[in-house]
Amino acid sequence: MIVVMNEGATEDQVQAVIDKLMRLDFNVHRSTGVAHTVLGGVGPEDAVEPAEIAVMPGVMDCRRIMSAYKLASRAFRPQGTVVRIGDIEIGGGRVVVMAGPCSVESEAQIEESAALVAAGGARVIRGGAFKPRSSPYSFQGMGEQGLKLLRAAADRHKLAVISEVMDSTQIPLLAEYSDILQVGARNMQNFNLLKELAKLRKPVMLKRGIAATVEEVLLSAEYVLSGGNYDVILCERGIRTFETYTRNTMDVSAIPVLQKLSHLPVVGDPSHGTGRRDLVLPLARAAVAAGADGIIVEVHPDPDRALSDGAQSLKPEQFSEMMQQLRMIAPAIGRSL
Amino acid sequence: MIVVMNEGATEDQVQAVIDKLMRLDFNVHRSTGVAHTVLGGVGPEDAVEPAEIAVMPGVMDCRRIMSAYKLASRAFRPQGTVVRIGDIEIGGGRVVVMAGPCSVESEAQIEESAALVAAGGARVIRGGAFKPRSSPYSFQGMGEQGLKLLRAAADRHKLAVISEVMDSTQIPLLAEYSDILQVGARNMQNFNLLKELAKLRKPVMLKRGIAATVEEVLLSAEYVLSGGNYDVILCERGIRTFETYTRNTMDVSAIPVLQKLSHLPVVGDPSHGTGRRDLVLPLARAAVAAGADGIIVEVHPDPDRALSDGAQSLKPEQFSEMMQQLRMIAPAIGRSL
Amino acid sequence: MIVVMNEGATEDQVQAVIDKLMRLDFNVHRSTGVAHTVLGGVGPEDAVEPAEIAVMPGVMDCRRIMSAYKLASRAFRPQGTVVRIGDIEIGGGRVVVMAGPCSVESEAQIEESAALVAAGGARVIRGGAFKPRSSPYSFQGMGEQGLKLLRAAADRHKLAVISEVMDSTQIPLLAEYSDILQVGARNMQNFNLLKELAKLRKPVMLKRGIAATVEEVLLSAEYVLSGGNYDVILCERGIRTFETYTRNTMDVSAIPVLQKLSHLPVVGDPSHGTGRRDLVLPLARAAVAAGADGIIVEVHPDPDRALSDGAQSLKPEQFSEMMQQLRMIAPAIGRSL
Amino acid sequence: MIVVMNEGATEDQVQAVIDKLMRLDFNVHRSTGVAHTVLGGVGPEDAVEPAEIAVMPGVMDCRRIMSAYKLASRAFRPQGTVVRIGDIEIGGGRVVVMAGPCSVESEAQIEESAALVAAGGARVIRGGAFKPRSSPYSFQGMGEQGLKLLRAAADRHKLAVISEVMDSTQIPLLAEYSDILQVGARNMQNFNLLKELAKLRKPVMLKRGIAATVEEVLLSAEYVLSGGNYDVILCERGIRTFETYTRNTMDVSAIPVLQKLSHLPVVGDPSHGTGRRDLVLPLARAAVAAGADGIIVEVHPDPDRALSDGAQSLKPEQFSEMMQQLRMIAPAIGRSL
Repeated sequence: MIVVMNEGATEDQVQAVIDKLMRLDFNVHRSTGVAHTVLGGVGPEDAVEPAEIAVMPGVMDCRRIMSAYKLASRAFRPQGTVVRIGDIEIGGGRVVVMAGPCSVESEAQIEESAALVAAGGARVIRGGAFKPRSSPYSFQGMGEQGLKLLRAAADRHKLAVISEVMDSTQIPLLAEYSDILQVGARNMQNFNLLKELAKLRKPVMLKRGIAATVEEVLLSAEYVLSGGNYDVILCERGIRTFETYTRNTMDVSAIPVLQKLSHLPVVGDPSHGTGRRDLVLPLARAAVAAGADGIIVEVHPDPDRALSDGAQSLKPEQFSEMMQQLRMIAPAIGRSL
Repeated sequence: MIVVMNEGATEDQVQAVIDKLMRLDFNVHRSTGVAHTVLGGVGPEDAVEPAEIAVMPGVMDCRRIMSAYKLASRAFRPQGTVVRIGDIEIGGGRVVVMAGPCSVESEAQIEESAALVAAGGARVIRGGAFKPRSSPYSFQGMGEQGLKLLRAAADRHKLAVISEVMDSTQIPLLAEYSDILQVGARNMQNFNLLKELAKLRKPVMLKRGIAATVEEVLLSAEYVLSGGNYDVILCERGIRTFETYTRNTMDVSAIPVLQKLSHLPVVGDPSHGTGRRDLVLPLARAAVAAGADGIIVEVHPDPDRALSDGAQSLKPEQFSEMMQQLRMIAPAIGRSL
Repeated sequence: MIVVMNEGATEDQVQAVIDKLMRLDFNVHRSTGVAHTVLGGVGPEDAVEPAEIAVMPGVMDCRRIMSAYKLASRAFRPQGTVVRIGDIEIGGGRVVVMAGPCSVESEAQIEESAALVAAGGARVIRGGAFKPRSSPYSFQGMGEQGLKLLRAAADRHKLAVISEVMDSTQIPLLAEYSDILQVGARNMQNFNLLKELAKLRKPVMLKRGIAATVEEVLLSAEYVLSGGNYDVILCERGIRTFETYTRNTMDVSAIPVLQKLSHLPVVGDPSHGTGRRDLVLPLARAAVAAGADGIIVEVHPDPDRALSDGAQSLKPEQFSEMMQQLRMIAPAIGRSL
Repeated sequence: MIVVMNEGATEDQVQAVIDKLMRLDFNVHRSTGVAHTVLGGVGPEDAVEPAEIAVMPGVMDCRRIMSAYKLASRAFRPQGTVVRIGDIEIGGGRVVVMAGPCSVESEAQIEESAALVAAGGARVIRGGAFKPRSSPYSFQGMGEQGLKLLRAAADRHKLAVISEVMDSTQIPLLAEYSDILQVGARNMQNFNLLKELAKLRKPVMLKRGIAATVEEVLLSAEYVLSGGNYDVILCERGIRTFETYTRNTMDVSAIPVLQKLSHLPVVGDPSHGTGRRDLVLPLARAAVAAGADGIIVEVHPDPDRALSDGAQSLKPEQFSEMMQQLRMIAPAIGRSL
């Protein structure tokens, strides 16, 4: 903990901060500059929020030295984590493509989807059975029946499955049908859900919340890791900014930043990152060029008739084109697709 | 639905949009201008996302005419909603103050808190028993024992109780001890939780998510209202912006905006809105001056020793000062405290 | 300067940072913790950007100890600055109201405006002669003729004048007709303009840029102060956020924050802060309740026919109502209007 | 103009809007739905801000049909604009790299820079002579002497020159030494400067402001185009968001979005877009993969001793590595470097 005192802070004010830090079991080093006194506290940084020191009289600023995440940090596993599902490696030398419709809608739709994503070279099929929708009047998903159809179609085409879990009560169901459990952006700080997922022995893909900093993403990952589940994949899927032309602003920089700060693999989601089909290809290319370990995209046999997110779903021929482009880009960063 | 075609859109492109809207049961009016053709569709707006039309070839822009919330809109109940807990009216002529510690920590702490907030003139005591914390290593709350202590202290001082519910499984417990169930900012779009709260016959206070627009706040309220629970209170508690001096940026304008768009009462939370004790008084005054139906603030008998959120908790003497100031301001907008 | 090294940083990496800081004339204190080595550098903080240290190998984080503004900081003049124009004091015991149309449009319009704002109790009239407009096809202002009309109307009604200067070449003209030179939000970091205004002996009102942090506001003020012009007034007028219902999000907290960090007076602008006439009254009340030293609002004799910003201009009767409300609120914070 | 009336709007309110639009020379079409009356106005959209209608009684929402930019829109020149400097084509089949130091610091430094960027394959050298700095105490540039050194070094290595113009008075000087005049992010809405640049017959590169929407970028370009200068290049260089790990958030999506909405070439600036040397390579790759017509990056012979922006300047060997990677990526989008 670093505390900078105001110019003109009194000796009593300095002493009060030192006392507070010592009460919390910090060792305190004091350095007195021309204008400012600076206190360096070494101790249990989790025990106190910097803001609590920052509002004490005479304090100009207080900041943490160490980040509050530990198991998620690169230092914990410098060589990086590879998440394995059968022979698929996420975080290895090959960029993994996950693709499929926003929602499972029918047996025919999911079968057709599985066929086309497998043909294109994707290794994982996505598809939602429970849909978080801003409006209570929108389509809410097929539930367990959707999961069954998804699993069957995946098995026919030798694909792994990723699907979203919306709350703790759904974990057993999702764990039965899906290889990777996705935590959606709105649930990134649903800490009860994260604690339950920590007990599972299946990979979890944690999507960044639309207003979450990279540090908060890593703190949420820490909830899962600290509970004993080390197979966590991070996903950048766009943040909310003042720009409204795109549904979100895909923060492509977050991909290399998360890889620098953490050992966990990072996937990019250009479908939610942009919200528009015509932007998915450029941003999928950008994510792979920036070093993403994988891509998750929405593709639908007939997007104009999709029950949800049709606007951001690729058409089959766009998906093929994307796969070809990504195959050309991956070698620039020493990878293959 | 309003669709504006590009300059130079072909007749086929225009016709494809008309066909899609008609397939969705819209009546379509076409107006052909010098540069742009404009289509006005009247029909079931919930049936389609504007973005799905916006990505069709030749389309420049597509927007909804009607907002997707109905029961939450001012038009549904122009005279406004008053939420009643015993003789307390939220949304009536008196500004209601809710105050108390961030977390229930011990019997002595909550008793002391109840005494001081009651003495100051607050009508509702707040206190968390389950705490959502960004870091898994922080204090997570006392659980049911905390709720019991809170209820007992409130009863001794004739206060109503507000406390946060973190997921659906906690609803029965919270409903037993608390008069108002608070949905935290991180859960504002936890739609499963909202659907369960809709079945309850107790008031719900819905806090705005840190990246939620006012429209999304109202759509979340719609989840609760459409399930049959009409006692919903909205709460502005700060949004995330680029400014980092304050923990959040309290969007004081959202108070009159929500009151204009909706009939539901609106409460301001200057403690979370600013994150700093020294800013709570000015922003509490601002919220009341802007017309808030109530204020919720954190106050602690000894904030320096608080187990959570000490930095933003008022000291007892600051709470008294705030109450005096608010009493002077309320009459400027035709209210009392 | 505080530098925190990564866990596992090598001795060579630590030494490279120490060498760099010493080359820049810093005294460096080293403290070696269990996990992290921390370096505290005391020296000429302006000489280096923290980011330059932050990208060195082995560095986790680097931050400035002292803010880069000095003359603008509260410590420089703890008792606060009062800017005087004749007998008007901005930053004194009375809240100063500045009001008038967005643009000067005609002799009749500005005379009518002056009469109504003087009658309501405002002390300063505002009115633009040169208008910065996002579109090149919008009304661009009356120029010098507008300034003459504004000055004459102000003199007839014993009002001081504030008007916007758009670039350095306009300074002599503005200085001739206006008592306060306003720097618009888009020019807050037009450093050449600020340097020229620093040579003037007239008050300058500096509006916060829509994406400027409070620290950047103070650094821009520092440009004016460091050139010798001490009569600087700051103005909060809304920042850009993801919320689109209002044109900007008025950051009411910035008012007490700027007053805490700086000795300069702070004015609130609810017209630009919200962009909607129906929100100006609540936000004007909020700004005064939060402690603003003044308010600047747009008012027009007939807003429906205004040539610019009609949507956010108050009608005459709304202006009167606002003045009455503000008179009731000011005493709550020990001031009058 | 599309106006949607509130449910329950009175006939008088509807008529008032129709009257206002007709007074402004709009033709108005009325359509009366079950819940809402919708008015479509065809006419001079520049004559009125939608907000002015939006605040009229009974109005729910009002929006423009046509964007306010015309000459900058893709429809004006569907085949796209190619900006030519000698044999360099920006917006053609080759991705153009512009590189060089943040500031010109000395003859040796700029000569060394020119040699290394030419050797790497860049076609344009960048270098600032006048530096906009947030703090008045930072290095402010070498002025005309810097421009001379830059021009001479460029000529020796057959490079074109790009340098920033900070205000109108500097235009003649910049036009003498530089092939492209850069308008910095802080000046993107300095409309007086844009009007003067419109009179020039030299290419202008307009950087996106840190809080500017893509629509505002195009409106600023419109200022230059409408004054007769058609050689405008747009530049995405990062926007301000809540994320603080990077100096800005590079909005990679804005590259294809601007190319879709406009015919003007678009360049990406990963140096300012990220503010950190270690992120420049991934984001340069991402920008090219997303389809940028060019890249502008900071590179310095010895970044640790740079007088400005050293943190984001590439080292010589990083620059070579970047060029090799970009050469591999360009073919994926049908281009070369």
